[in-house]
Amino acid sequence: MESYFMFKNLAIIIVAAKICGIAARKCKAPQVVGEIIAGLLIGPSLLGWVEQSDFLIQLAEIGVVLLMFSAGLETDLKDLMKTGPIAALIACAGVFIPLVCGALLYMAFYGFAPWGSEEFYKAVFVGTILTATSVSITVESLKEMGKLKGRVGTTILSAAIIDDIIGIIVLTFVIGFKSPDSKPVAVLINTVLFFVFAIVIGFVCYKLFQYADNKYPHTRRIPIMGLALCLAMAYIAEKYFGIADITGAYVAGIILCSIRDSKYIAEKMDTNSYMLFGPVFFASIGLKTNVESVNMSILIFSIAFVAVGLISKIVGCGITARLCKFRGIDSLKIGVGMMTRGEVALIVAQKGLTAGLLTPVYFTSVIFLIIVSSISTPIILKILYSKDAASPT
Amino acid sequence: MESYFMFKNLAIIIVAAKICGIAARKCKAPQVVGEIIAGLLIGPSLLGWVEQSDFLIQLAEIGVVLLMFSAGLETDLKDLMKTGPIAALIACAGVFIPLVCGALLYMAFYGFAPWGSEEFYKAVFVGTILTATSVSITVESLKEMGKLKGRVGTTILSAAIIDDIIGIIVLTFVIGFKSPDSKPVAVLINTVLFFVFAIVIGFVCYKLFQYADNKYPHTRRIPIMGLALCLAMAYIAEKYFGIADITGAYVAGIILCSIRDSKYIAEKMDTNSYMLFGPVFFASIGLKTNVESVNMSILIFSIAFVAVGLISKIVGCGITARLCKFRGIDSLKIGVGMMTRGEVALIVAQKGLTAGLLTPVYFTSVIFLIIVSSISTPIILKILYSKDAASPT
Repeated sequence: MESYFMFKNLAIIIVAAKICGIAARKCKAPQVVGEIIAGLLIGPSLLGWVEQSDFLIQLAEIGVVLLMFSAGLETDLKDLMKTGPIAALIACAGVFIPLVCGALLYMAFYGFAPWGSEEFYKAVFVGTILTATSVSITVESLKEMGKLKGRVGTTILSAAIIDDIIGIIVLTFVIGFKSPDSKPVAVLINTVLFFVFAIVIGFVCYKLFQYADNKYPHTRRIPIMGLALCLAMAYIAEKYFGIADITGAYVAGIILCSIRDSKYIAEKMDTNSYMLFGPVFFASIGLKTNVESVNMSILIFSIAFVAVGLISKIVGCGITARLCKFRGIDSLKIGVGMMTRGEVALIVAQKGLTAGLLTPVYFTSVIFLIIVSSISTPIILKILYSKDAASPT
Repeated sequence: MESYFMFKNLAIIIVAAKICGIAARKCKAPQVVGEIIAGLLIGPSLLGWVEQSDFLIQLAEIGVVLLMFSAGLETDLKDLMKTGPIAALIACAGVFIPLVCGALLYMAFYGFAPWGSEEFYKAVFVGTILTATSVSITVESLKEMGKLKGRVGTTILSAAIIDDIIGIIVLTFVIGFKSPDSKPVAVLINTVLFFVFAIVIGFVCYKLFQYADNKYPHTRRIPIMGLALCLAMAYIAEKYFGIADITGAYVAGIILCSIRDSKYIAEKMDTNSYMLFGPVFFASIGLKTNVESVNMSILIFSIAFVAVGLISKIVGCGITARLCKFRGIDSLKIGVGMMTRGEVALIVAQKGLTAGLLTPVYFTSVIFLIIVSSISTPIILKILYSKDAASPT
């Protein structure tokens, strides 16, 4: 394919995402919903104007990394420390309950499987797919509403990060039973090592940036070096510790969230995001889908899968939040905020495919879950927040 | 290759480009020189930290398109109209003289070839490689010095654009003699049609943007739609008219240069450029090079090729500018500003390879020319401008 085709694809994505984004806002829904729908519209499912390409996938990857870096930059470190333990509890419930429910769903459809049998692991694997929250859409929605920084926003964000890590550990355990290559203990150690590494490097980088920031405030080099740190941490997390790149980028954001120019960095990142990388990332979720290959039995399983996926997260996280003394409506916000699934669910599904624990046809269900949760989460969150604002507190 | 490797490559490019850029500025040279040297340093020639990849090539392509769009946005349309005819003259001389000199150089090295012989076309082709000015580095240097908008800057810019078009026509003629596929007349017609198209579409888009700009001033949709126009024009130019994508992007910039928010668009584009796309583009010039494959005879030819390439442009454009009543030092600035070669020279060389008019070994000479001209142009321009400022006018 000639390189100039990418210009066409990017132009179509940018225009479609912006138009659908504006339309979504006119319907009082968040812009991201419009951008995902734009991807569905122009993708192979409907108009077929844009096809997924390696280049778009990589741009989208940069997009989600930039998004998580921004989220990290806007974190209030004191809030994070305060919400940390509770977030960890919420994350555990948000992994455990969907895991069990997913496995039970599979058995309900395909018959009970005894502990340790081949079918049993397949059932557990379907549950595993349901564990990983994908926080990027929630982040973008909360950001649009200006609610990213509050106690609820920070709790969701930190719970999602911890959830991600637990999800990866669970995945490694489940696959570990099937294949001898995977070492669950090594994953645990790697995760601990990564956070030790992040604290050490984080402290050094924080001091360096603080120095540079005082010496050259508001110069281009600050956001440029910030971007480099974000990319480097994303790489190091994946390459040396087997942690998701978005976790690395988020940690990079946290490292820089307390320097004086953190807002300046975030502003420059946002310009990069909203001009190109953001629309490409959100549209790419829609682009991945091809609704033609769906038949009736998959459709029914998918509907049940989506329902279980959403409800189990809301219940698991929401009830735990309520037990941790959040107000009722805030618990619901946390549950809903945690129910989005994204690329991590696809990555998990891909790993299951390689390990022989999943057949390709279930990809459709995973994509359904991603789309339904991506579209409904922002809408429900917006309703919850506006209800909350309307009611007397 | 796993996708997270791109994070490593991008992080290294960004950091190296920034450090070398700052170092270049400390040595009173323009930043772009530092960025190109950064590419050489981290590329396969020296450290080998980063390898050229499809993804980087495509990012660099977007980088040069954004750069030309910015240049278009900052154009003063009245200046362009005023300088147009003179720029066309300068461009013609800047194509003709290097073409003849390049052909003579080849004959001086490999013996005289009679008109119409195989060797004759090879000689003419070496001349053809020398025709196309690559204005992006000059643009960036003039921008850094704040000299993009003056009469000299606008003349260089418009001459380079016209030069590009004449260069493409010449290329098509030369290849047309060898292969029956290429139709020189069609190229001429296409070029005329493109500009007719650009004027019509340009007028419509200008009115639309003017309307949007009055209704929603300083909103995100203005730069986003501007970027989309830039990408669309780049695509349409290449796909439907066979014109270089950068010409399309520049025309898109010209279309929007008179709306009220053109500065706002340019500012957002610049943030995108300097954070990621710019450094990747300039570093990629250095990345393309591998100095290991060079031997003595190629080295001597390359030195002569570079010297002829630079001097013929300076003489051709400079003397024409002087004849058009530019001051002596301004004529020299124009000549030097026109002497940079870039990706267009590589594209021409690539076409010659396919047509059997060039052997791969001459690629090294072309890359030498690009590097030497890319590094020396900004430095010489800076010296000329500071001399000019120091002398009484």
